[in-house]
Amino acid sequence: MLPMEKVTAFAPATVANVAVGFDVLGFALEDVGDEVSVAREAGSRGVRIESIEGVVPDLPMDPRKNTASVALLDLLEERQPGFGFTISIRKGIPLGSGMGGSAASAVAAVVAANRLLGDELSAQEQLRHSLAGERAASGAAHPDNAAACLHGGMTAVVELDPPRVVQIPLPDGLLCVLVHPHLTIETRHARAALRREVALSVHVEQSMSLCGFLVGCHRGDLELIRRSMVDRIAEPTRAKLIPGFEAAREAALAAGGLSFAISGSGPSVFAWADSTAVAGGVEQAIVGAFRRHGLEVDTWVGPIRRRGAEVLEPRRNG
Amino acid sequence: MLPMEKVTAFAPATVANVAVGFDVLGFALEDVGDEVSVAREAGSRGVRIESIEGVVPDLPMDPRKNTASVALLDLLEERQPGFGFTISIRKGIPLGSGMGGSAASAVAAVVAANRLLGDELSAQEQLRHSLAGERAASGAAHPDNAAACLHGGMTAVVELDPPRVVQIPLPDGLLCVLVHPHLTIETRHARAALRREVALSVHVEQSMSLCGFLVGCHRGDLELIRRSMVDRIAEPTRAKLIPGFEAAREAALAAGGLSFAISGSGPSVFAWADSTAVAGGVEQAIVGAFRRHGLEVDTWVGPIRRRGAEVLEPRRNG
Repeated sequence: MLPMEKVTAFAPATVANVAVGFDVLGFALEDVGDEVSVAREAGSRGVRIESIEGVVPDLPMDPRKNTASVALLDLLEERQPGFGFTISIRKGIPLGSGMGGSAASAVAAVVAANRLLGDELSAQEQLRHSLAGERAASGAAHPDNAAACLHGGMTAVVELDPPRVVQIPLPDGLLCVLVHPHLTIETRHARAALRREVALSVHVEQSMSLCGFLVGCHRGDLELIRRSMVDRIAEPTRAKLIPGFEAAREAALAAGGLSFAISGSGPSVFAWADSTAVAGGVEQAIVGAFRRHGLEVDTWVGPIRRRGAEVLEPRRNG
Repeated sequence: MLPMEKVTAFAPATVANVAVGFDVLGFALEDVGDEVSVAREAGSRGVRIESIEGVVPDLPMDPRKNTASVALLDLLEERQPGFGFTISIRKGIPLGSGMGGSAASAVAAVVAANRLLGDELSAQEQLRHSLAGERAASGAAHPDNAAACLHGGMTAVVELDPPRVVQIPLPDGLLCVLVHPHLTIETRHARAALRREVALSVHVEQSMSLCGFLVGCHRGDLELIRRSMVDRIAEPTRAKLIPGFEAAREAALAAGGLSFAISGSGPSVFAWADSTAVAGGVEQAIVGAFRRHGLEVDTWVGPIRRRGAEVLEPRRNG
């Protein structure tokens, strides 16, 4: 069999922080994400970006500035496979939306390259290279998005360096309503808005909520999950960057949403719902609140994606 | 049937914080605790302390200064049963040991009084009155000890006011080695040593460890538990108050202990072990390290107590 020459992988959009686990928790969304095709380039030791298409075509073509190519440069530096890569990126995730777009491009590129290399990288190695890519985008690597993107489901990063990830069980039938108001907040600006210190009492209360949330997830106890999804860390400063946030929260909870919180560094927000009917009502409630504040929105409603990033082409045994 | 006149209850010693859940987590110890007898006193509306015996007989007899009597004063104020209480306390938990002695006296008193009142208090109400007692001892109510003491097993406080408590599953066969070096640290002094602010990065890393710990407990994954039991909040300042702490940690881990951390506000320390043989070795290792630092110690080795505080006399149907 000839070695594969080109592999295309899909990596899902993700919601990081999940209200209660700042820089720790994340979950993957079904149906929305980035696709990256990676081809061998003989005679090269570097990465060349051939094309960027999709919802954000104006990204830099400089391989040192794109999360996908930086991730692959990191991989090439470590693995030295004797060839380089050409990549094509199809963005499904809007830039600066808080839906983990920079992580998804990096993860899709690494997953595709790993297949080209004969699946020789462990999940931890794939995550590590993906994070090297994200570092290029946000100045620091926050593995919450990339972990959920690579593994699927809901994940917690439990150690940083090297990254270790565990899966958090989710109650069946949970739906996510994600709303992206048309307003761009760059991750680095959203991080700059954060306080660098947390009061000890806030740390303790946030730990209490995290305990309630994790126990609720393990038990499938929606009421405990609902009571625990409180963000005392990022929301107090970041919510101010999102016009209509408080109105949208009130509307989402009044419509029966289990939770309402910022997705990652925003401006996207998400709510969980325990049925399709509730999810529809929550979606309308949030959309209405943002529109009254003069914001157009995109919405996405669906289940949490159980599978992680995956190779689309060529299919195995296909 | 005549109403009961006197009830004796036992409440176990507890380990709070559990390395990774400052002011949140606690677990109960088998065989060591406080006993409180509560008798009706007709014609009174208050609480009188009749005797204090046991390992710390020099506690104040002023009912406004003892956690057991303050808890009952709080209960009487709310319930107005038309009588008062006389209490006798038998302390099994050394004062200032970091083994939850003030919580145990308060919880035992409330559990006994609740039986005298016909079991009319919910667990949450019993915890609330117990915390009123603890407030008298430490200046503020930190429900981690009282929650584990009342409920048994390992608990997490997930909301503060009113307190809500959830049980955390523990792997079978886990043993606790608790070592109390003879050195008194008052809770209020141990708290004063804490920094009032936590760096955001420390908050995040501690949240990661808490996630790893809770997932490890739910899965029965001892390796994940072991890696996660890290205290970045209290230990950096409190360990300095305990001579030999670092030597004891090294010895405990070298002997196969799963963890080594301060129990509550110290100076007691605890380690978990996954077998009786390991627990014995860990005990000897910790004792040796403290003795080399000139400290005498008491030790206690045994399983985590699954049952919470309970009435000893009169027995039901007895």
